[in-house]
Order: sequence, then C-alpha cells, then structure tokens
Amino acid sequence: MADKDPIEGLVALLGRLPGVGERTAQRLAYHVLGASPDYAKALGKVLSELHDRVRRCERCGNWGTERLCTICSDTRRDRSIVCVVARPPDVAAMERGGGYRGVYYVLHTLLAPLEGIGPSSLSLDSLIAQAKSGDVQEVILATPLSVEGEATALYLAQQLRAHDVRCSRIASGLPHGGELEWSDQVTLARALEGRKPL
Amino acid sequence: MADKDPIEGLVALLGRLPGVGERTAQRLAYHVLGASPDYAKALGKVLSELHDRVRRCERCGNWGTERLCTICSDTRRDRSIVCVVARPPDVAAMERGGGYRGVYYVLHTLLAPLEGIGPSSLSLDSLIAQAKSGDVQEVILATPLSVEGEATALYLAQQLRAHDVRCSRIASGLPHGGELEWSDQVTLARALEGRKPL
Repeated sequence: MADKDPIEGLVALLGRLPGVGERTAQRLAYHVLGASPDYAKALGKVLSELHDRVRRCERCGNWGTERLCTICSDTRRDRSIVCVVARPPDVAAMERGGGYRGVYYVLHTLLAPLEGIGPSSLSLDSLIAQAKSGDVQEVILATPLSVEGEATALYLAQQLRAHDVRCSRIASGLPHGGELEWSDQVTLARALEGRKPL
Repeated sequence: MADKDPIEGLVALLGRLPGVGERTAQRLAYHVLGASPDYAKALGKVLSELHDRVRRCERCGNWGTERLCTICSDTRRDRSIVCVVARPPDVAAMERGGGYRGVYYVLHTLLAPLEGIGPSSLSLDSLIAQAKSGDVQEVILATPLSVEGEATALYLAQQLRAHDVRCSRIASGLPHGGELEWSDQVTLARALEGRKPL
C-alpha cells in the first residue's frame, strides 16, 4: 500500500498506533507533509533503524543500545535488590519516582493461560542465574495488580523460593489522593486487608 | 539527539507531532519497539521518502504523486467551477461529502498581515491563469470563516473580479443540528443575516 500512494500508506501505518484513529492519522500525516522535509526524514531514519540499534539488556531484558542497559552497567545501583516488572515503560515509571536504587528485571510478557501463554513463554534464565549466584537478597514482584500480573507474581515467587530468595509483592490499596467513594470494591477490600497499625 | 539514544530520539521527534505530549510520545515509542520490526521499517520508509514522492499538483496545488493530482486529471470533474480552500485536508473533507463535482484550488496559506503574510505570499498564478483562460464560470471561496479566511476571500474576490469571474462565498450559519442556545453571537448574527425565504 505504501508503494501505491505514500499519503494513504502513511495514514494507514499511523492508524495502527495505539489511540490513533483514521482521522487523527490523517491529521498527523498532513502535519508531517506540511512540516519541514528534514523532520519527516529524521523520524523516518530513527524508525527504520530502531530495531537494529535497540536490543534487550542481557542481564535485565530492558531496552538499550549496548550489551548491558544503562541501569545494569551503573555500578552505583544495588544489585542485591531486583524489581521484576512486566514492561520497559514500567522501569521508566519507577525511575521517574527516583527513590529506588536497586536493579530491574523486565519480563516483556505475563502468564495468560487462556491465551496460551504459559511458564515456558517467560524468559527467566538470567533472573534464576542471579538468584542462584547468591548475590540477590530480595526480589520485589512489581507486575501489575491484574489477574495476569498476580498469577505471574505467584509463579515467580514459587520459582525463586526454590533458590532461597526472599520475595515481596508491591502493595495494593487506594492510590494517592484516592477517594473511597470512587474506588472499586476490589481496591477497597485490598486497602482494608493491607491496613497497617498507626 | 537521534544518533545518541534511538529511543530518546524517537520520543523527542514523536513529541513534535500535534496533540502528542511527552507521555504519549513515550507510549507510542514503546509500542513501536514492542511491535514487529517490519512495522517500524515500513513507517520509517514511507516517512523518509514522503517529501521526495509527494508533490504539489501544478494546477490546483493539492498534494499528489504526479504532475497533476487525481482530481485535476479526472476528466469527469467540472473545470468551470473552482473551489478555493486553505489546506489539503479541506479537499479531503469536501470529497467525503461527495456532492461536489467541480475542481479545487489549494492556497496552503492565508493572508495574515500581523504575521507578515501579505498577498505576495499567496501562490495565485495558476488560479489567475485559469480565470484568464475564460474556462472558469465560478470560483467558490471556501476559506475558513476566520479573520484570516475572510480577509483572504475578500482579496481573492477583488483579484478574480478583475478577470470577470463570478465569485461566491460558502454560507455562514448554524451547523447541522446546531442549537441557538449554544451558538456564539457571531454565528447567530450571521445565521440571521443569511436567512432565506421559505
């Protein structure tokens, strides 16, 4: 299609981005057409080269350009604490907080038996190797608080306990500024369960 | 920047698209990273080649890949009626309606004296040539109903009348389904002025 009409091709490809419908794709395409050719060429270049230049960190699985990502190659990070997350943007979100000094492990996928994604689909080799080495004191399971995220956290806890690694799960409760009135029942029940003495 | 870190470069470039903030740019970049490399390469290719493959139609100024755009080279279109619009998406909007059988003229810019955009910035050569040839019966001025659009329509009407071409302006009034209660005063005043006998 891109070889037939470049504008239609661009609109079709942009329309496959999340949250971009046909009208938005058209608006974006016309914007790029109206903007400097240098911009379209720069964006085209970085997209064309993206998957050749970006690779998964051999240690944690996060995106990077080298064998080890910037966090894994940072000697000031505490390698005895590993935070397991589902996807690379989760690492970015945690880093924005700035309070965490340990390292990460990015799964890229979660258990979803109904969709045929079982334990064999999880790449855990590097995590298990780190656990076996005895350097890891604690693994924080920070997968989402969804059915898939909970199932994955439980499975990982089982696997890691077999190597004598302490596991913890991120807290579930009301978000910052959250109102009881607008919270769903599961969140409320979890917030009650997880109550702490004051 | 794109040469330093491809992900940061991609986020920065995507963030320059209209309606795309930093967070959305990040989400889109991670989506592209997680999607098939073929997708990124296809989008990269069409963007890199875009300005080389797309050109302005010599007759009407609309985007196309040939010397004449698909509308100007369509012999079934009525060349005696020319609809003047500000931007290429306006042509697409008119064509979606499907009722118009004439041709177009795309200005790509509107008069904006305060920003230093005077009559010399308008490319009118092909329009004036068509007017001079005597083939054009009517020019419909369909620039936006904004200050710049109105000023441009008035200027064009002056220029075209000098060549004995009949000009008309698209109607101003309440939009389809419009409620008097929610309409602004200018729209209401124009709808009253433009009233027609029933």
